[in-house]
Amino acid sequence: MLKVNANFIKLPPSYLFVDIANKVDAFSKQHPEVEIIRMGIGDVTRPLPKAVVAAMQKAAEEMGKAETFRGYGPEAGYEFLRSAIAENDFQKRGVAIDKDEIFVSDGAKSDTGSIGDIFDVDNVVAVCDPVYPVYVDTNVMAGRAGDYHEGTGWSKIVYMPCLEKNGFLPRIPNERVDIIYLCFPNNPSGVGIGHTELKKWVDYALRNQSIILYDAAYEAFITEEDMPHSIFEIEGAKKCAIEFRSFSKTAGFTGTRCAFTVIPKELVFNEVSLNKLWGRRQSTKMNGVSYVIQRGAEAVYSEEGRREVKENIVYYLNNAKIIKEGLAKAGFKAFGGVNSPYVWMKTPNGLTSWEFFDLLLEKTGVVGTPGSGFGISGEGYFRLTAFNTKENTEKAIERITSSFKA
Amino acid sequence: MLKVNANFIKLPPSYLFVDIANKVDAFSKQHPEVEIIRMGIGDVTRPLPKAVVAAMQKAAEEMGKAETFRGYGPEAGYEFLRSAIAENDFQKRGVAIDKDEIFVSDGAKSDTGSIGDIFDVDNVVAVCDPVYPVYVDTNVMAGRAGDYHEGTGWSKIVYMPCLEKNGFLPRIPNERVDIIYLCFPNNPSGVGIGHTELKKWVDYALRNQSIILYDAAYEAFITEEDMPHSIFEIEGAKKCAIEFRSFSKTAGFTGTRCAFTVIPKELVFNEVSLNKLWGRRQSTKMNGVSYVIQRGAEAVYSEEGRREVKENIVYYLNNAKIIKEGLAKAGFKAFGGVNSPYVWMKTPNGLTSWEFFDLLLEKTGVVGTPGSGFGISGEGYFRLTAFNTKENTEKAIERITSSFKA
Repeated sequence: MLKVNANFIKLPPSYLFVDIANKVDAFSKQHPEVEIIRMGIGDVTRPLPKAVVAAMQKAAEEMGKAETFRGYGPEAGYEFLRSAIAENDFQKRGVAIDKDEIFVSDGAKSDTGSIGDIFDVDNVVAVCDPVYPVYVDTNVMAGRAGDYHEGTGWSKIVYMPCLEKNGFLPRIPNERVDIIYLCFPNNPSGVGIGHTELKKWVDYALRNQSIILYDAAYEAFITEEDMPHSIFEIEGAKKCAIEFRSFSKTAGFTGTRCAFTVIPKELVFNEVSLNKLWGRRQSTKMNGVSYVIQRGAEAVYSEEGRREVKENIVYYLNNAKIIKEGLAKAGFKAFGGVNSPYVWMKTPNGLTSWEFFDLLLEKTGVVGTPGSGFGISGEGYFRLTAFNTKENTEKAIERITSSFKA
Repeated sequence: MLKVNANFIKLPPSYLFVDIANKVDAFSKQHPEVEIIRMGIGDVTRPLPKAVVAAMQKAAEEMGKAETFRGYGPEAGYEFLRSAIAENDFQKRGVAIDKDEIFVSDGAKSDTGSIGDIFDVDNVVAVCDPVYPVYVDTNVMAGRAGDYHEGTGWSKIVYMPCLEKNGFLPRIPNERVDIIYLCFPNNPSGVGIGHTELKKWVDYALRNQSIILYDAAYEAFITEEDMPHSIFEIEGAKKCAIEFRSFSKTAGFTGTRCAFTVIPKELVFNEVSLNKLWGRRQSTKMNGVSYVIQRGAEAVYSEEGRREVKENIVYYLNNAKIIKEGLAKAGFKAFGGVNSPYVWMKTPNGLTSWEFFDLLLEKTGVVGTPGSGFGISGEGYFRLTAFNTKENTEKAIERITSSFKA
């Protein structure tokens, strides 16, 4: 008889954002008069840059003519896009990354979710706590997580608590771990990491022959000088890190789907090149990203594209500022939001994250994300995102300040 | 130290079509005067239907305006597309498949490659021989294939030889197997399967609680009456089968990327719904297909889209006819090509598949695919595809008939 993957059965029955959507639906049915403002899921609202739209339309037209039609493209992405990425995101910043080290994909979620394919099931995985659930859930599916215990989490996962007293940065684990997921600027806490701190992780990984899976999906939001936009700005990182990037939050591609993963050729474990291993995985399990979409992504690097993207980032960062200042005014403690579209706030009066979720929804119609959904150390915290419109963000903050007076 | 997935290391170093590309490159460098005609990889050449291009352009425009912009879509696909698929591809043919049973993806390669995620590593896998390499390679990566032995293949895979004497149809295995990959109309042999024959497989699967992974990527090419377009036309199949479909070969989406997988709600093993399990896998490991692309796929079902798609299919089937008749004229034995864009020919004079590849390239500049690349029983056969232009197909056949006189 067919046996299903029993690891899947261990997973809690649903996904954080599905739970939230269900709660909001139920609330809306009970209170149809309340206009809901969504600041929960990290989804953007600004339209695609004009340069991107134009490039996609032109590419669609090409696909409609025999002379310019394109069939299967290279699995790792077209050279025009890989070159544009390598040049603009790395070489221009003084980071020597070659186009052959860039793998274009349909999303950082796909890549962070599937990268585990190339690793043995027996590796020890370390994650920040709180953390983007995909890192943990995909390791559960792969059988790397052990069993779940209420209050302590998955038995084989090494959790690295990110606490207020450490500025929400994880501390180097005492034990040896093989695979370390890091995300900076961080989701959910919104804090960034400086060169000096990140160097410690690279040194740890080199010393222990561990790998750092570095999610830099939010690098475009960095405003402070000392923060690396890429882990490959750190000496030695090419021998111990893979970096995940995305056009989702930068250029508004959440519904358009394009991202990329950087695997340096120097990244070799036990004489095996991870660049080649991932190349093999990708060429066996997918057929590359749509030509039309890759042309759209390429246009992000055009002069007009860059200008529009920058405007959007400034727009969202301004929202983050409005949120952070508003929360402070309402008497809340809030973090992040300076190098990130996420603001991480402490719930008032010792409320649990879900209690505050309910209270906030009830009092203001504002939807955020309960910190406990990101892990045990997220309990007592709450995430608000800056991706809504300025108007809605201001409205939400007005409602919050008037409902929760300091 | 990080341990890589040792199963990857077991894989032969490169992929069939990469080997072919390298051989062709080398030949072209030596013989720059020869115009190469590619009938190897199953890639289309007809442009996208106008209706699809228009729909994508309109969708791109929507993405450029705040009022109509779309962020994250549902992981399983937009309802507009899932409904169009369920209605047109199933309900209109009398097959009761619901939109909730449709999972939209970026390709049948992604889905047939990743479906193994939801199954235990200990299942016994059966594949046709010859076979589309992705089914085997992805099971190697997952650790289900055992070890490779020259001449007999992977130790744990059950091979079902598809031989000329059985009309290239596989025979029901004597042993119990858990996962059976079937592809009809078949890649590479180009033969279809009738209701009566397919019913035997469904009965076997029901009796043994096995699952059939049914790749129907070429169903649009079926011209004969008795052939099911979907395995769900067979009674009982909803309790034992998953079906993979694609817009690639139907509507020319090889470079545009959209496909779907059908998992009936009745498909339950050990009380676990595979529809839910795959839903969980997809919502954890991907973020759905681009809105722009899904609108393009929807347009395949418009009146204009359907007409254009039909024209393309007729065009390619006409090429297949030209190939088959030309090969016969040149004295070759050829199969398939009636319900499929693939023609499967026997190599002359006992040549191996690769020997014939070299000979054909040398004598005619025509590139095909060596049958042995699809498995041991493919040795001595060769695949030609009908996806080139009519002009090139005619030119290739002229060269073949004049080079190999009967």
